[in-house]
Amino acid sequence: MPRLWVPNALTVANLAAGLTAILLTIAEQWALAVALVFGAAMFDSLDGRVARRLNVASEFGKQLDSLADLVSFGVAPALLAYQLVFADSGWGGYALATVFPICGALRLARFNVSGTRGHFVGLPITAAGPVLAACAYFVPVLPVTGQAFVLLILSGLMVSTVKVPKL
Amino acid sequence: MPRLWVPNALTVANLAAGLTAILLTIAEQWALAVALVFGAAMFDSLDGRVARRLNVASEFGKQLDSLADLVSFGVAPALLAYQLVFADSGWGGYALATVFPICGALRLARFNVSGTRGHFVGLPITAAGPVLAACAYFVPVLPVTGQAFVLLILSGLMVSTVKVPKL
Repeated sequence: MPRLWVPNALTVANLAAGLTAILLTIAEQWALAVALVFGAAMFDSLDGRVARRLNVASEFGKQLDSLADLVSFGVAPALLAYQLVFADSGWGGYALATVFPICGALRLARFNVSGTRGHFVGLPITAAGPVLAACAYFVPVLPVTGQAFVLLILSGLMVSTVKVPKL
Repeated sequence: MPRLWVPNALTVANLAAGLTAILLTIAEQWALAVALVFGAAMFDSLDGRVARRLNVASEFGKQLDSLADLVSFGVAPALLAYQLVFADSGWGGYALATVFPICGALRLARFNVSGTRGHFVGLPITAAGPVLAACAYFVPVLPVTGQAFVLLILSGLMVSTVKVPKL
């Protein structure tokens, strides 16, 4: 495999993990689905670093990364939260499961055209997604309204202009 | 609403339709889910045209469009095909439902960095997705192996360098 493709293979692994998390969510395999969202986050934290280390960072890789992030940290956590928490909430549940990835997509599109300086503008979807998935799975004691509040706050923070320091 | 946001609102409608198609697929509302994939395609065919007509085409809009396209024409049709056709195919079904959106993401990332001349390079995901959804829903007589063949051909055409004329 050419060196150029190593970071892109990691990005594809991120996307594959996110897609499998969605399929496992449909199969009601919650624990595995949550684990795969975190697995996707691990691959995502590696691809950019490996690209810079190998000196093969590319515009193609950046585009592929955003596409994978929307699926793994936007769609997969929203579906997980829907199935675990909002499935009995009718169209309100549909609205919540839809608004989170839409805010994530707006955040990713803005990021891709604005770049970064020393900090992120708005909460990155790569942070919001795992938090949403973890909250839905690990905090079942939180009532539906509380979970909806968490989802809406995370959605708002993604499209906000809040400065978030890079770790 | 500022004029600039009209095409982006259409792109968000595309994404919302795709996400709702996924939720309806989980709810086994097949006909509505397929209809929404085609609804997403309708919104998608409008956003670029409206942006050019209003003279507000933007890099932000282009990025948002690709993100929406992956969900509406990559993830949603793959999940629909999985649920309708490959649900009993074990890990093979998972692999098929994963490979289609991955090829779609590779196609979208390549398109975003290469632009177009008079033709597309590789089958656009906006064509492949509706074909996959329609084939899974409207051609139930086609056996699982035939459906898998269609999915793999569409996936291969997306990442190929076949020249596809613009309509």
